Amino acid sequence: MTDGCIFCAIAAGAAEASVVRDDGDVLAFMDIAPANPGHVLVIPRTHAVGLRDLDAAAGARVWTVAHAVARALRTSGLRCEGVNLFLADGAVAGQEVFHVHLHVIPRFAGDGVVIRADKRPRDRAELDDHATAVRNALPANATGQ
Amino acid sequence: MTDGCIFCAIAAGAAEASVVRDDGDVLAFMDIAPANPGHVLVIPRTHAVGLRDLDAAAGARVWTVAHAVARALRTSGLRCEGVNLFLADGAVAGQEVFHVHLHVIPRFAGDGVVIRADKRPRDRAELDDHATAVRNALPANATGQ
Repeated sequence: MTDGCIFCAIAAGAAEASVVRDDGDVLAFMDIAPANPGHVLVIPRTHAVGLRDLDAAAGARVWTVAHAVARALRTSGLRCEGVNLFLADGAVAGQEVFHVHLHVIPRFAGDGVVIRADKRPRDRAELDDHATAVRNALPANATGQ
Repeated sequence: MTDGCIFCAIAAGAAEASVVRDDGDVLAFMDIAPANPGHVLVIPRTHAVGLRDLDAAAGARVWTVAHAVARALRTSGLRCEGVNLFLADGAVAGQEVFHVHLHVIPRFAGDGVVIRADKRPRDRAELDDHATAVRNALPANATGQ
């Protein structure tokens, strides 16, 4: 447990939360200020700040719980016509609690959630250059395959 | 391969893409209209529309590749001060290509990407009710634990 981390406190049972699932190493609970009713956060119990220090296997378990929660939202009776999974890694990406968490957000028409970017098509040469840059930074065995 | 699906065509090598990683069952390539340079899409090779028909194990492999790509972006030389992972399941959630895909988006200060919701704190009783609704819709073994 990391001192001063609200999600570590929740994971330790020292702070209140509305828990959806506790699988030991992964915990799912309601966001206290939901974007829409039914907004769930999924966290690894072991503290990690973000994607850089999150263990690969722990991350996959976080995903698996979030995937199941996303499916469950569709049949929960809560309003859910679609789902967003969202993770903010770093303050500039919108991270506010520095214990990595995957948002599962039910969506419906007219809900007021805004996700917007200036998505401009780029030419193939530029895309190929970017692919090369990322590919060269990817360890060959990074994906556990 | 699903007729008319651009991501199935990319996975089959029948449509052009700037590929970052091909692990057989998971493919990562550059978004043709990136939110920021370095924006990668990660897809399962086998067609699934969204989270409801995506196999749990295939989903975990998509996550694992996305996690590795997110780490790689930080050292790729592309501008990357943070990362968003984002998945839109359903048109109302912003899905535009109906072959499930996980976005990996490098972020930097002033990049113009907007993610906004009216996040209002809710009282504990309401959050507990929502947690119960989701918990009751979650199969006990859905998370593979």
